[in-house]
Amino acid sequence: MAEIPHEAVTVLGLSAMGHALAGALVASGHPTTVWNRTPGRGDDLVEVGAARASSVAEAVGVNDLVIAVLLDHASVHETLDPVIARLRGRQLINLTSTTPEHARELARWAAANGVGYLDGGIMAVPSMIGQPGASILYSGERAVFESNRSLLESLAAAEYLGEDPGLASTYDFALLSVMYSMFAGFFHGAAMVRSVGVSAAEFGERASGWVTAMAHGLPEYGRTIDSGDYTTDVQHLGFQKAALDAIVTASRDAGVALDVIAPVKNLIDRQVADGHGDLAFARTFEELR
Amino acid sequence: MAEIPHEAVTVLGLSAMGHALAGALVASGHPTTVWNRTPGRGDDLVEVGAARASSVAEAVGVNDLVIAVLLDHASVHETLDPVIARLRGRQLINLTSTTPEHARELARWAAANGVGYLDGGIMAVPSMIGQPGASILYSGERAVFESNRSLLESLAAAEYLGEDPGLASTYDFALLSVMYSMFAGFFHGAAMVRSVGVSAAEFGERASGWVTAMAHGLPEYGRTIDSGDYTTDVQHLGFQKAALDAIVTASRDAGVALDVIAPVKNLIDRQVADGHGDLAFARTFEELR
Repeated sequence: MAEIPHEAVTVLGLSAMGHALAGALVASGHPTTVWNRTPGRGDDLVEVGAARASSVAEAVGVNDLVIAVLLDHASVHETLDPVIARLRGRQLINLTSTTPEHARELARWAAANGVGYLDGGIMAVPSMIGQPGASILYSGERAVFESNRSLLESLAAAEYLGEDPGLASTYDFALLSVMYSMFAGFFHGAAMVRSVGVSAAEFGERASGWVTAMAHGLPEYGRTIDSGDYTTDVQHLGFQKAALDAIVTASRDAGVALDVIAPVKNLIDRQVADGHGDLAFARTFEELR
Repeated sequence: MAEIPHEAVTVLGLSAMGHALAGALVASGHPTTVWNRTPGRGDDLVEVGAARASSVAEAVGVNDLVIAVLLDHASVHETLDPVIARLRGRQLINLTSTTPEHARELARWAAANGVGYLDGGIMAVPSMIGQPGASILYSGERAVFESNRSLLESLAAAEYLGEDPGLASTYDFALLSVMYSMFAGFFHGAAMVRSVGVSAAEFGERASGWVTAMAHGLPEYGRTIDSGDYTTDVQHLGFQKAALDAIVTASRDAGVALDVIAPVKNLIDRQVADGHGDLAFARTFEELR
């Protein structure tokens, strides 16, 4: 059986994440050209077989597929506007972290210049790239996703969400919101237990199992939200309010700042004050949209 | 081998949780006496073998072990102060949700009246009682824990944290803080993805796996906090600030309220403004204690 030749690809940007992505491409046998604004990065990639482009123009000119992993939305334009004519007829997969609106703007800009555009949100830290557990969410032109699918799978589990180029970024940021909130709650909890001499590492072990158990309930919370029916027999908002009142009092007693927990209490207090005390905790969704 | 007779126990309070606990005790063969302030609850428990006490005095007089699952700290005193002389020489395990300070006050009150005292924090919803996955954390008199260990294991995995009666409550509230923050972040994320037509249930499925993966990192965050060394090469606070800025912008663009995510952004902004932008995200702990 003849081997299918590995698609050649250019990676723009060798931050920790760009470097990890380029490394995974080289490791999986894709001829890879790298470029970084600041010279001197990526020597180790060149040593294992990557080619280094001496200019953006060269980088985008040598391969039909370009993956951008730049600082932000502005740097995508700064880097690619001067060479946009060279990109015509090629494909751009943008893994730079941008807002959904900026992803949509880049998709329009790409379309206007004859460039295929796919946007991606990386659900991983650099060390996870090329390993099980990492995933990247994509949205934009389906053809760009489909034609590069096996290459994308060499980076992380690849999921295509839909044509709206802002979808991947929205999903990415929504998941990051859960993560950041969870970590903020962990720092709060660690401050509480440290006040009674428990190590944050011990707390981390227990919190890890606890959060994992509680996360199993998220799909059910989601179904409640989708149904719009928040009537419940158990652990209604009035119950949650009593719990949050006690947690806030205990936090204050322990000398822990309320930056993290007071906003959650306020959200619940507001709903109880508005007469929703007998409805489910998931109703909090309605306060946010 | 002779069977060890099952210890008799009284359960005060038949809320959803009290009812679940009494049910698990009956099911595991413990002669169980129940009492509830409002009559008419617990008929189903009596049907399967529980005895019903007609007064608190009777309830605390018939067994050497009393488990209280009442509304709050005040209701523990309201219920037990009038019968405190009857409790002398017996053991009280208080699973009523109270603050650590209130747990310590109850321990002093119990000691002054010759009552053995153990405080507990229930890490479960009522439906989990008696099932794998539920745990109850205990603190206070070690002897009360040890002498009732097998009975306590019939309710949920039983863990003794130490002599300070406030420990279990502190730990309980610290874990609940992580849970509430995580759920708040989930409601925020659900509001974001619903703005682009993704169902909250679908988001819940993905968020569940994502949160579980991220929770694996909590012990490492804890070790960083315990070390007090926040120097890092990757994903420092400056990086997190850029991510939170983008998430807040995207949330605003999507019409999602900032109640949940703005406080997290503020915590990070404050540290970057104070010159800690090159330190690790875990430094946020220091802002809270």
